Amino acid sequence: MQKTFNDVLYLESGRMISPVTIAYETYGKLSSKKNNAILLCHALTGSARVAGTKDNPGWWEPMVGAGKAFDTDRYFVICSNILGSCYGTTGPSSIDPYTGEPYALRFPVITVKDMVVLQKRLIEYLGIERLYCVAGSSLGGMQALSWAVTFPEMTARMIAISTARNITPMAIAFNTVARYAITKDPFFCDGNYYGKTPPNNGLAIGRMAGHITYLSDAAFNRKFGRRYATFEGIYDFNGFFEVENYLRYNGYKFTDRFDANSYLYLLKAMDIFDIEYGYSSFEAAMARITAKALFITFTSDTLFPEYQTADLVNMMKKINNPPVWARVESDYGHDSFLLEFDKQTEHIREFLG
Amino acid sequence: MQKTFNDVLYLESGRMISPVTIAYETYGKLSSKKNNAILLCHALTGSARVAGTKDNPGWWEPMVGAGKAFDTDRYFVICSNILGSCYGTTGPSSIDPYTGEPYALRFPVITVKDMVVLQKRLIEYLGIERLYCVAGSSLGGMQALSWAVTFPEMTARMIAISTARNITPMAIAFNTVARYAITKDPFFCDGNYYGKTPPNNGLAIGRMAGHITYLSDAAFNRKFGRRYATFEGIYDFNGFFEVENYLRYNGYKFTDRFDANSYLYLLKAMDIFDIEYGYSSFEAAMARITAKALFITFTSDTLFPEYQTADLVNMMKKINNPPVWARVESDYGHDSFLLEFDKQTEHIREFLG
Repeated sequence: MQKTFNDVLYLESGRMISPVTIAYETYGKLSSKKNNAILLCHALTGSARVAGTKDNPGWWEPMVGAGKAFDTDRYFVICSNILGSCYGTTGPSSIDPYTGEPYALRFPVITVKDMVVLQKRLIEYLGIERLYCVAGSSLGGMQALSWAVTFPEMTARMIAISTARNITPMAIAFNTVARYAITKDPFFCDGNYYGKTPPNNGLAIGRMAGHITYLSDAAFNRKFGRRYATFEGIYDFNGFFEVENYLRYNGYKFTDRFDANSYLYLLKAMDIFDIEYGYSSFEAAMARITAKALFITFTSDTLFPEYQTADLVNMMKKINNPPVWARVESDYGHDSFLLEFDKQTEHIREFLG
Repeated sequence: MQKTFNDVLYLESGRMISPVTIAYETYGKLSSKKNNAILLCHALTGSARVAGTKDNPGWWEPMVGAGKAFDTDRYFVICSNILGSCYGTTGPSSIDPYTGEPYALRFPVITVKDMVVLQKRLIEYLGIERLYCVAGSSLGGMQALSWAVTFPEMTARMIAISTARNITPMAIAFNTVARYAITKDPFFCDGNYYGKTPPNNGLAIGRMAGHITYLSDAAFNRKFGRRYATFEGIYDFNGFFEVENYLRYNGYKFTDRFDANSYLYLLKAMDIFDIEYGYSSFEAAMARITAKALFITFTSDTLFPEYQTADLVNMMKKINNPPVWARVESDYGHDSFLLEFDKQTEHIREFLG
């Protein structure tokens, strides 16, 4: 579904967007008291389609549905595509009403808070005053955190998985590789590639760098080892290992489904996110949270290392709102939140009560 | 200095190169018994110039010289540029005698063993029958290991720093990003860019990916944190963090000094290196070593994780040639071998006796 708001959306940067459209899906039924709504926030390249059908599953299919962690027999689950993305919500590929052309790089830099402010409009449009829970992983976890800080009165519970108050400089470094790969692709044309050949090589290379951060050393060893995947043998200049084949395949497959400009804007939003921003200190920001909180981390996640969640947990203890922190032993790396369903389900079910 | 051999160099792949030139430097004086020669093997993009002058230092300046770890008052130190590189030794930018043009991608895939076989020619040319020691770090450590396995009778001692019997699939993944970045650059022209504009964007992006692997999470945090380095502020699409500035600067600076084809061939050599290759097993390969061995690792090195050196050390114990393993506590990551001079000096001095 899509909803278009004509009221100006004021962004953190001071810039404005209007009209603004948000794509969303809902699952389950809103109770008559409207007190069973859960907002799920997707990660970097996800969509509103968090659950789907057996043949065409959503991005968190094993977590959302009847009897699952986010039990649609009990909860009204909402998931919307984030601002700046390319799955139905306004982003750089949308038409700029002032020019009649896609925004491209005229699109304003957006922030996680801007995404959340747009989501709030949707929640209010759906007639919900207070969310039973906001949950998300990675960039989605940043949104959950931002909800709890920005709109504490609307956020009864927060589940923040594999996330952080801000990303590490090493994570920014990976995003930088993607940024250069895309913007230096000759088909990028300063972002004005709509209707023409898009910068697929650059986007694929950027995504390959991303994939390195989603796995872990152990996952790479288990998944690929040093198996060689080619025809000519190891002395063939064009020969490759299975791990290269995986990166190539996933890198280029990604170009079929994602817009390069959206990728740049969402990486930017991730880079510049800091929960402290706009408040006098990290403590002042976190002290706004009234939600009950659950944090989930995975031991092998190097993109969002556990010490970052420790910072959040310690701060919440300090402000007398001690959260639950479930540390899950897993060697899947950052991708664990898309793979370790049983362990997450257990902790989430217990937390939601 | 340079020495050209006209005899055919037979490569592991079955292909041949002739003539082949090797660039080298020597430091100190060869003893009359010719028993004080130490060969230093450089890493991925190094040169023969391991030591230089105060104003123009070599790549391992603090380690090589009078009274230093590799004491030129006692030892005759040799360092040569590796096969496939671009600092005076034959590589893809050299003239192919059959065409009168640079080899470019007609250059054969080369291996670490091929590098070592060429180094052996140089050592013999210098009149040395047995090396007091062969030492190197990273790709240089692979060469040291390969010397000890391939020419045990010529290798009295081996120092292998931050290295492995083969690189991890995660390391191959980083090299893959570089490979795609270079070969998809429109200026790459299938490697035939000599005399024209070289694929500098691709090479710079590839090098950026490399730089991520040279540091550690802790080093990124200390060196850059989340400091912002731009003029317009965080909502500027073209704004950047200091870490991005570092990657950009070092990525593009690298294009002034290195040939993209050489980079591709040396990454390939690194990817396909396996000390076991050509022998019946890892144990059979390692059992050939008669050299006394010193391994040095750094705790925060994720490109060559310590567990890889543990494999080497354990195998040498198994074959009754127990080595010394110096584990150095450092949070500089893989770059530690270019930064932790005091600690390395201590261990190397003790080992060389």
